[in-house]
Amino acid sequence: MPQGETFYRAVSQVLFISQAYALLPVSNIRSVDVNKIRFNWRSPRVIYSATIFLLNLCEFGAVLNYVSSVGVTFHTSSSLALYIVCLLEHLFFWRLAFNWHSIMRHWHRVEQLFLSVPYRFYGEYNMKRRINIVVGLVMSSALVEHCLLLANSFHLSNLERTQCNINVSYLESIYKWERPHLYKVLPYHVWLLPLLEWVNETIAYPRSFTDCFLMCIGIGLAARFHQLHRRIAAVHRKVMPAVFWTEVRQHYLALKRLVRLLDSAVAPLILLAFGNNMSFICFQLFNTFKNIGVDLIVMVAFWYSLIFAIIRTTLTIFITSSINDFEQKIITDLRDVPSKAWTPEVQRFSEQLGNDMTALSGNGFFYVTRQLILSMTTTIITYELMISDVINQATIRQKTVYC
Amino acid sequence: MPQGETFYRAVSQVLFISQAYALLPVSNIRSVDVNKIRFNWRSPRVIYSATIFLLNLCEFGAVLNYVSSVGVTFHTSSSLALYIVCLLEHLFFWRLAFNWHSIMRHWHRVEQLFLSVPYRFYGEYNMKRRINIVVGLVMSSALVEHCLLLANSFHLSNLERTQCNINVSYLESIYKWERPHLYKVLPYHVWLLPLLEWVNETIAYPRSFTDCFLMCIGIGLAARFHQLHRRIAAVHRKVMPAVFWTEVRQHYLALKRLVRLLDSAVAPLILLAFGNNMSFICFQLFNTFKNIGVDLIVMVAFWYSLIFAIIRTTLTIFITSSINDFEQKIITDLRDVPSKAWTPEVQRFSEQLGNDMTALSGNGFFYVTRQLILSMTTTIITYELMISDVINQATIRQKTVYC
Amino acid sequence: MPQGETFYRAVSQVLFISQAYALLPVSNIRSVDVNKIRFNWRSPRVIYSATIFLLNLCEFGAVLNYVSSVGVTFHTSSSLALYIVCLLEHLFFWRLAFNWHSIMRHWHRVEQLFLSVPYRFYGEYNMKRRINIVVGLVMSSALVEHCLLLANSFHLSNLERTQCNINVSYLESIYKWERPHLYKVLPYHVWLLPLLEWVNETIAYPRSFTDCFLMCIGIGLAARFHQLHRRIAAVHRKVMPAVFWTEVRQHYLALKRLVRLLDSAVAPLILLAFGNNMSFICFQLFNTFKNIGVDLIVMVAFWYSLIFAIIRTTLTIFITSSINDFEQKIITDLRDVPSKAWTPEVQRFSEQLGNDMTALSGNGFFYVTRQLILSMTTTIITYELMISDVINQATIRQKTVYC
Amino acid sequence: MPQGETFYRAVSQVLFISQAYALLPVSNIRSVDVNKIRFNWRSPRVIYSATIFLLNLCEFGAVLNYVSSVGVTFHTSSSLALYIVCLLEHLFFWRLAFNWHSIMRHWHRVEQLFLSVPYRFYGEYNMKRRINIVVGLVMSSALVEHCLLLANSFHLSNLERTQCNINVSYLESIYKWERPHLYKVLPYHVWLLPLLEWVNETIAYPRSFTDCFLMCIGIGLAARFHQLHRRIAAVHRKVMPAVFWTEVRQHYLALKRLVRLLDSAVAPLILLAFGNNMSFICFQLFNTFKNIGVDLIVMVAFWYSLIFAIIRTTLTIFITSSINDFEQKIITDLRDVPSKAWTPEVQRFSEQLGNDMTALSGNGFFYVTRQLILSMTTTIITYELMISDVINQATIRQKTVYC
Repeated sequence: MPQGETFYRAVSQVLFISQAYALLPVSNIRSVDVNKIRFNWRSPRVIYSATIFLLNLCEFGAVLNYVSSVGVTFHTSSSLALYIVCLLEHLFFWRLAFNWHSIMRHWHRVEQLFLSVPYRFYGEYNMKRRINIVVGLVMSSALVEHCLLLANSFHLSNLERTQCNINVSYLESIYKWERPHLYKVLPYHVWLLPLLEWVNETIAYPRSFTDCFLMCIGIGLAARFHQLHRRIAAVHRKVMPAVFWTEVRQHYLALKRLVRLLDSAVAPLILLAFGNNMSFICFQLFNTFKNIGVDLIVMVAFWYSLIFAIIRTTLTIFITSSINDFEQKIITDLRDVPSKAWTPEVQRFSEQLGNDMTALSGNGFFYVTRQLILSMTTTIITYELMISDVINQATIRQKTVYC
Repeated sequence: MPQGETFYRAVSQVLFISQAYALLPVSNIRSVDVNKIRFNWRSPRVIYSATIFLLNLCEFGAVLNYVSSVGVTFHTSSSLALYIVCLLEHLFFWRLAFNWHSIMRHWHRVEQLFLSVPYRFYGEYNMKRRINIVVGLVMSSALVEHCLLLANSFHLSNLERTQCNINVSYLESIYKWERPHLYKVLPYHVWLLPLLEWVNETIAYPRSFTDCFLMCIGIGLAARFHQLHRRIAAVHRKVMPAVFWTEVRQHYLALKRLVRLLDSAVAPLILLAFGNNMSFICFQLFNTFKNIGVDLIVMVAFWYSLIFAIIRTTLTIFITSSINDFEQKIITDLRDVPSKAWTPEVQRFSEQLGNDMTALSGNGFFYVTRQLILSMTTTIITYELMISDVINQATIRQKTVYC
Repeated sequence: MPQGETFYRAVSQVLFISQAYALLPVSNIRSVDVNKIRFNWRSPRVIYSATIFLLNLCEFGAVLNYVSSVGVTFHTSSSLALYIVCLLEHLFFWRLAFNWHSIMRHWHRVEQLFLSVPYRFYGEYNMKRRINIVVGLVMSSALVEHCLLLANSFHLSNLERTQCNINVSYLESIYKWERPHLYKVLPYHVWLLPLLEWVNETIAYPRSFTDCFLMCIGIGLAARFHQLHRRIAAVHRKVMPAVFWTEVRQHYLALKRLVRLLDSAVAPLILLAFGNNMSFICFQLFNTFKNIGVDLIVMVAFWYSLIFAIIRTTLTIFITSSINDFEQKIITDLRDVPSKAWTPEVQRFSEQLGNDMTALSGNGFFYVTRQLILSMTTTIITYELMISDVINQATIRQKTVYC
Repeated sequence: MPQGETFYRAVSQVLFISQAYALLPVSNIRSVDVNKIRFNWRSPRVIYSATIFLLNLCEFGAVLNYVSSVGVTFHTSSSLALYIVCLLEHLFFWRLAFNWHSIMRHWHRVEQLFLSVPYRFYGEYNMKRRINIVVGLVMSSALVEHCLLLANSFHLSNLERTQCNINVSYLESIYKWERPHLYKVLPYHVWLLPLLEWVNETIAYPRSFTDCFLMCIGIGLAARFHQLHRRIAAVHRKVMPAVFWTEVRQHYLALKRLVRLLDSAVAPLILLAFGNNMSFICFQLFNTFKNIGVDLIVMVAFWYSLIFAIIRTTLTIFITSSINDFEQKIITDLRDVPSKAWTPEVQRFSEQLGNDMTALSGNGFFYVTRQLILSMTTTIITYELMISDVINQATIRQKTVYC
């Protein structure tokens, strides 16, 4: 049995790396034996993750304190939203961590069906490679985005320092620029910078990683639907015994149960990820109407992060909706079953496929299918046009003055 | 037979309390025998309710008179709308009162099916406790809201009195502030205040109680769908005789008939409640853009009432849509019926479940399902963005001058 | 056989009256024998209708000429739209007149099925009385609207005459006010007034009559669906022979064919009527934001025509969607057919009812069901909110100056 | 076998002409033998098309260079969009050219089924004549549009020359007006004009031709659905053997497979064509609010191109959605199959028709059915109303000053 093709093995490396960012602190996540995966309150990973989470909470408290003194403006409210979203994502991953072992065990049991003789198409889909490529691409793009934003900060804080003749060192000016909410509470020390940068990264990481995680789950499920589709396609137009269709339908039902289990497990992540992506894109598009600034690095960072968000969201929808695409293909195959082999069993299968929707759904609020791209686009354009009224006035680009 | 688990018993206390506010004046509502519930034109409750309704009408007349003299402004039109909605709610509860005994008798007959041997899961759902908890929470929150609004009035009327040096007593200034439409018609007397406050409460009460009432009905129906679902889940993957499915389907049809009966009985309440909630949330969100005032108590009252309205509406949708959720679960269970037991009876049941929509619906205009939350949110955001154009100008918070 | 209960007899009076307004010039429309109904190019009705249509065209030409000299303004474009809509309605009624005899003959053949023994419920629905009541109510309200608009014109033209000291007689001033496009082309004569008023009425009449006509057709079809529903309801929960269901389904198919025939015949009228009603309501609601004028008669005429349009549109949707409501009831009845009587025939009937939509549809663009009211309301509110931006400025009501 | 009635023959002339504009460079496209159609990298057509595509790319480079020097304005961004759309259309036609021979061979194989004995209704539909009429009408209208735009350019460039006393010849002024992006790079020569005009036409041609191409495919597919519908209609209400329905369903499945193949082949063209048409109509409607200019020729060119775009888009939807219309008719016919002949085969056919959607779909994003017209109209009106806010100010038409 090809170990690389079970989901918990295929995704183990990705999750192991994400544990470095304090997400999903489950013990033995790289174990070969699925039964060793467990959540242990006293494991070092949990302690590490809890520490990071507490640090994040502290920083959030500092931000709250800062906002209440400065007042709620457009800028502070957007950074508040960022903190809230990331803390919620941390929370939802904790919630997932508690159930991860039982989810993986259930998934593993379902996968046993698809790793036995009649299914031999795992090589074709190559789940593990797909997961690694997608996560690698998205997370390295996210790294580039993060570096651009940092460079942006370095540049702007330096500009402020030199233009306003503030008598602080280069590094201190960065500290002040990046963390105005901590500057008054926590006096500057050189050794604070790497620590805070690390905390910052554990806050920034989940924003892109949540999408990646959904894509991994999409790929893991699609691999099985792909196998089912290939098995049915292999007997295209042949007369098969009823027992074949009974078995296929049983496996399909097992997959449906798995999809439902995962849907209820990751529903908060789906709702948060899509809501956040959509509002981020709306917000950044809205900023394009405004004065962005003429500095090259500011422009590049802005446009990179906007285009990255659009591509990442589209990719997430495409990959997670592939479950639905495979189901459509199975329906098409069933139309070609010869009349002789059209037993009540096949009819029941066909009716179920026609009536039920198989897709991740955020607990039934909306279904992640290909049409979602169109309706998200329409909604974003509509909101953009509405908001654009507000800001007809100031469109002349000018050099921002920093003091 | 556990008496507490019949709907008319479970809901009797809630309705008894609401009768104090002149709603649903049905005799013997707390009777153990469902046949004793009746509407009697000469019962004291009817006379009391009619008196209150007449007083409300009189006050509405005074408001109309006041508005026609002052002119239709933003403020007067919103208080006009409040009176109209509450009078309509009183009217619709009267309409319901006439039919209450026949509805309860029909419901009771249907409940007999679910209180006999094969169903034993009433303990699990615990209808009565759920009703009491939900109504208790919502109505006590509504009480807090009412007190906040009163405190708000006391505070503002006192401010006006002191700032403008009006030579009236503290209580008279409250009277004048709260009931400007009565101040000229009805001279001030101390003993008027409690009476008018009571009338005021019978006007304010139905606004929150209508949502509660819909939740009670949702819980009452969901209890039965829950039992049906549990009975089917108990024989999961077992081969059951056709007569079992026939009986289950008969019971399901009886429930559907009950849902239809209730849907047509409470349709005006549903349309009014959802329309009112939605316009209230839109209106209050719109006010957030405007100058609310800097007084703490005004702020607290405003935000409390907005957040309470949002939570109450969401809760109403979640609870009344649980009927639909149970139906989805039954469909899922039917997919696992073994091939041997897949008789025409089961197929017919499955097809009916797949094609018909079971949910309260406001007479077929819209269905109260979970998706309603998403579409209401989208509509509210859209309207908010549109309206926001109108009020870009005045956003500076200033202390209101009262004279 | 009750002659009053065939559609062509029930509607004959209504159509006879509308022929006076040059609509549907079909010969022998009041004939007892459906075969005598025919379109005859040389009949006096056709000649009369053609004359009126030519006069309307001439007036439209005068309007076009006037608009091109005055320029396209908000006011002239709206009166242009009115003329175009009414001319199109005349045209579509001509188109219908050519096919009226074949439609009526087809309808009569279908009706024979429902006037024989097993159906005895025509007395209950009372098609003829419903048609007469509905048309009577709507058209007399339309008459009141027309009189109000006339009184409005009389009043305003007189105001202009007296305020500006124009030296023309009272009647001539009306002529000039009402028909500015004719005033320069056609010199004033007293005997012109009644003739032009008559032409004017043949232009105004179809606007309300198209809705009435659609309601008549809705009532005529609903009467048959009502009978079918009652026949099925009469055998509720009884085991009926397969031949019963075969016959019922045959009759249902005949009704569906009739609905399709009528849908394609009146599709242009449906599209025009709904489009016109919706844009008229949008336009008038938009005017409420603007300066309407403080004259009582102007106010009354304005609000009456707005409220009348809303009620008329809602009524049209309610009545024409009753076909769909009866179908829903038939589906519900079929759910209660006992298991023993659940033959393939009933199942086929049930599936067809579940999958196909039975409603007038404007050639498949949208279906006239109850939900249409909700979606029209939402669209109107949305458009209204958008337009309202344009006119925040001028809301002070002022006395219009006429010269 | 009527050669004119196979799709590859019927469409050959149209494609041959379009090859002159460097689209779809497939060899032997007018060949009688479908197997001779092939894509050959060394054929003169490919070399010609590649040359034209390179020239287009060069011109696009010049435009990019020009825009970057002038700055992104409303006008330059719209002409950028035009170039991008047309280059993409060229690209998508290249992509189609690679697969054209295999698509045509598959189509030809499917067509063999419909050119044999039981189907004899090809004369009725007359695919070739329809294609020629539709393409002739649309492309000649497009030619008129192109000439109007050219005349417009001649007129405006001449106005500029005379008003501003620029000392250049008439032709050079046209060159400068039409191609400001080339004027600085490429000095004026007389012989450049026809060459550039030809390049210009190869850029303008695909904009209208893509719609035509989709209509051709729609007609080609509809011809077959028409035949299938006629074959089923011919046995209306007759009892047919099961083998008849099996054969009909096989043919229907073959058609479905063809529709899917074409849908995936032309999906990018569909998405691009509808997106482009919709944004063009929105953009031009938006321009109607603005100052268009008072010159007659400018007005005529503007309105002609707007109305042409609306009609062309509507026509495209109507024709490509006719596949769906025929399917609806087949469903209706199946309802009338007598009870005796209602075999599982017919039921399966009926269920498939009821559940699956047969229409071109742009890869599943949206379905091209009749309802699309309504939803496009609503979206366009909504966007228009939103945009209209932006431009309430400047509505006075004024003579444009050119220097």
